[in-house]
Amino acid sequence: MRARLSALLLLTLGALAGCAGHELRGTGDLGVVIERASGSVQILDTSQRASLGKVAGLGDLSHASISYSRDARYAYVFGRDGGLTKVDLLTRRIVRRVIQGGTSIGGAISPDGKLVAVANYEPGGVKVFDANDLSLVADIPAVGADGTRSKVVGLVDAPGQRFVFSLFEAGEIWVADMREPRQPALRKFSGIGREPYDGMITSDGRHYAAGLFGEDGVALLDLWNLDAGVKRALVAFGRHGEKLPVYKMPHLEGWAATGSQIVLPAVGKHEVIIADQHDWQEVARVPVAGQAVFAVARPDGRQVWINFAYPDNGTVQVLDLPSRRIVQTLTPGKGVLHLEFSPRGEQVWLSLRDENRIEIYDPDTFARIGTLPAESPSGIFFTVRAHRIGL
Amino acid sequence: MRARLSALLLLTLGALAGCAGHELRGTGDLGVVIERASGSVQILDTSQRASLGKVAGLGDLSHASISYSRDARYAYVFGRDGGLTKVDLLTRRIVRRVIQGGTSIGGAISPDGKLVAVANYEPGGVKVFDANDLSLVADIPAVGADGTRSKVVGLVDAPGQRFVFSLFEAGEIWVADMREPRQPALRKFSGIGREPYDGMITSDGRHYAAGLFGEDGVALLDLWNLDAGVKRALVAFGRHGEKLPVYKMPHLEGWAATGSQIVLPAVGKHEVIIADQHDWQEVARVPVAGQAVFAVARPDGRQVWINFAYPDNGTVQVLDLPSRRIVQTLTPGKGVLHLEFSPRGEQVWLSLRDENRIEIYDPDTFARIGTLPAESPSGIFFTVRAHRIGL
Repeated sequence: MRARLSALLLLTLGALAGCAGHELRGTGDLGVVIERASGSVQILDTSQRASLGKVAGLGDLSHASISYSRDARYAYVFGRDGGLTKVDLLTRRIVRRVIQGGTSIGGAISPDGKLVAVANYEPGGVKVFDANDLSLVADIPAVGADGTRSKVVGLVDAPGQRFVFSLFEAGEIWVADMREPRQPALRKFSGIGREPYDGMITSDGRHYAAGLFGEDGVALLDLWNLDAGVKRALVAFGRHGEKLPVYKMPHLEGWAATGSQIVLPAVGKHEVIIADQHDWQEVARVPVAGQAVFAVARPDGRQVWINFAYPDNGTVQVLDLPSRRIVQTLTPGKGVLHLEFSPRGEQVWLSLRDENRIEIYDPDTFARIGTLPAESPSGIFFTVRAHRIGL
Repeated sequence: MRARLSALLLLTLGALAGCAGHELRGTGDLGVVIERASGSVQILDTSQRASLGKVAGLGDLSHASISYSRDARYAYVFGRDGGLTKVDLLTRRIVRRVIQGGTSIGGAISPDGKLVAVANYEPGGVKVFDANDLSLVADIPAVGADGTRSKVVGLVDAPGQRFVFSLFEAGEIWVADMREPRQPALRKFSGIGREPYDGMITSDGRHYAAGLFGEDGVALLDLWNLDAGVKRALVAFGRHGEKLPVYKMPHLEGWAATGSQIVLPAVGKHEVIIADQHDWQEVARVPVAGQAVFAVARPDGRQVWINFAYPDNGTVQVLDLPSRRIVQTLTPGKGVLHLEFSPRGEQVWLSLRDENRIEIYDPDTFARIGTLPAESPSGIFFTVRAHRIGL
C-alpha cells in the first residue's frame, strides 16, 4: 500500500510538474535575445518586460540570427559554427540541434513554414531542412557560372515559396523555387557585381537588394519581373574608391523600408541615404553621428532609429522622415549592437553588449521604461517576425 | 488510508485533465471565424487548416468583429447587441463577458494592449475597458458641438496610445489620447462632412478616413499633423446624387492599402478606385463584377482580392495592381462574406455564408487547398491582427 501510495504521489507530482513547467500562454508577445559570448539565448516577454529564462548550449552565436515557426512557438537559431538549433519558447528547451555546415551566416523560413534554409560559407551553399524535425530536404551547392564554389550570403524567403540568396565570390544572385522541396527550381543571375556581401528583401517581398563589397552600389532584382534581370542601383551606396576606414559593413536586413522610402547607411561615411523605395533613386542624405550599422523603421514608418559602429556604438539617433531631421540623440550605454520594435511600435528594445543589459524605451517619449540583465546581448528578435516576409 | 488514496487519485486525475485540456501550443497560426446565425465562433488553425473547436454563447454576432490581445491568446468579440466577450483561444472558453451597451459596432485595442474600446450606437459613445478583466476604465459620450448625441462608427486604434472614431449624426471625428486611461484627452474635429458611416486607418497608422453617407467623398485626417485638420478627398467615392441602388455600403476596414496605393470600392457602382496612398488622389478605375464590399490586399501588395454585394456575392475577383487588370474570377460558392490572408500570403480563407463552409485557396495558383464546415460564417480574423496597427 505504501508503495502504491508513493507511486501515486510521484505520478501526481510528475503531472503537476509537467503543468508547472509548461505554462499555458500565448506566444505573440515573446522574443529572444542572443547572448553571443555564452552561446545562450534568453526568452523575453514584451508584455511583462521580463525574461522568462535562458536556453544554453547553442554553440558559437557571434553572428547569430533567428527565424520563427509560423505558430510563433519555435525559434530556429542560426549559429556561426554551422549549428542549427530549434528552441521551444514555451518549454524553454532545445527540441533539436544539428551541425549542418562548417561556417554559416543566417537562414530563413519558407512562406508556408515547412522549410528552413541555411546559408553556408563553408561548404558554400544552401541547405534546406524540414522545419519539423530538421531532416535534410535539399542541398544546393553554390557553384557559379565560372565554376567557383562561393560563400552564400543574404539568404531571405520570398513570396511564392521561394528563397533568394547571393554568391560572394561568383557574384551571382539565385532564386530557388521550393514548391517541389526536394527538387528546387533554380533561376540564376550572374555578373551582378563584385562580391555581394549581404542581401535584403523589402517588406512587400518585391525587391531583393545585394550590397556589393567589391564595387559601389547595390545589385537590385525585381522579383515581380525576373525577366528584367538584375540592375544596379544606389551607386552612392559604396566607398567610391575612398580610403575611409570602414569599421563595419552596414547590415542590409536593417534597412528601413517604410513602404515609400528606404533608409540605408552610407558605407564608411557619417551619413544615411534616403531613397525612393519604388525606383531606388537617392532622394536625400542626412548627416549622422557615426558609421550607421542598423537603420530600423518604427512600425508606422515615421521615424527611423539608427545605431553605429565603433567608436560611436554608444549612441543611437532617431531620424524623422517627414522633416528629414535627426530629432533625438540617445546615449543608452556602451556597445549598442541591435534594436527591435514591438509590432505596434509602443516599445523599442536595445541590446547593450558592453553593459550586459537590455534597455527598453518608449519611442513616443524617448523615456526609458525598462532594463534587463543579459550576457553580451546582440540580436533581439520578437515573434512577430514569424508573420513577416523576409525575416 | 483509502480516503487519502482516493484524494490523491482525484488530485492526479485533476492535474492530468488540466494538462490534457489545455494543449501547449503557439498562438501565431490561430484564428477565429464568426458564426453569425448561431452566436458562436470557431477557433481555426491555419497550419493544419482545421477547426480546433467552437465557443458558443456570444449573443448577436450579425455584424461582429474581433480584436486580439497582444500575446495573441485572447479574442475580444464585439457583438451587435452591445456584448463584449473575451475568449481564450487555448482553453476555448469564455473568460469574461459583459453587456456594455445597447447596440454596438466594433471595437479596437490600444497599442500597448491594455485597453479595449467599443463603439456604441446606443447609447452613442465609446466605452473603454481594462483588457484584463473588462472593468470599465472610461466612458466617452459622443455629444457633438451642436449638442447631438451620435452613433459612433469607424473606431480604430492609432499609434501614440490613441483611439480615433467618427460621430454619425454630428459629423465629427474625435481623437482620444489614452495615455491617462481614466482621463482621455479628446481632440475634436467638427464639420467634417455629413453622416460619416464607417472609418479606417492606413496600415502605417498615418491617415484616418471616414466614408460619408450623406455626401460624396471621404473625410481625411492626417494623424501626423492634426493641426492641418480634416480635408475632403476622393470625391469620386460617393453616389454623386445618382439613384443607383446601393445594396451594401462598402466596408472601409477592407480598403486595401499597399503602402503606395489604396484600392476602394466605388459606392453603388461596378468599379473599384485605385488611389495614391500619399495624396489620396484617384489614379485609376477598374470595372469589376459587382458592387464591391471588401477589397483586401495580398500581404505583398501585388494583388487585391475583392468580394461583392448581393446579387454578385458568389463571385470573387483578383485585381493585379501593376497591370491594373482583373486576372482571375472565382466562383467559390454562394454568399462570400469575408476573406482573410495568412500573414505571409500563402493562404487565403473565404467565408461562404450560404454554403455553411469556409474555403481555403492558394493565392499563387488559385487552387482550392482546403474546406471546413461552419454555420453561416462571416468575418474571419487571424491572430496576426494582434500585431497590426488599426486592426
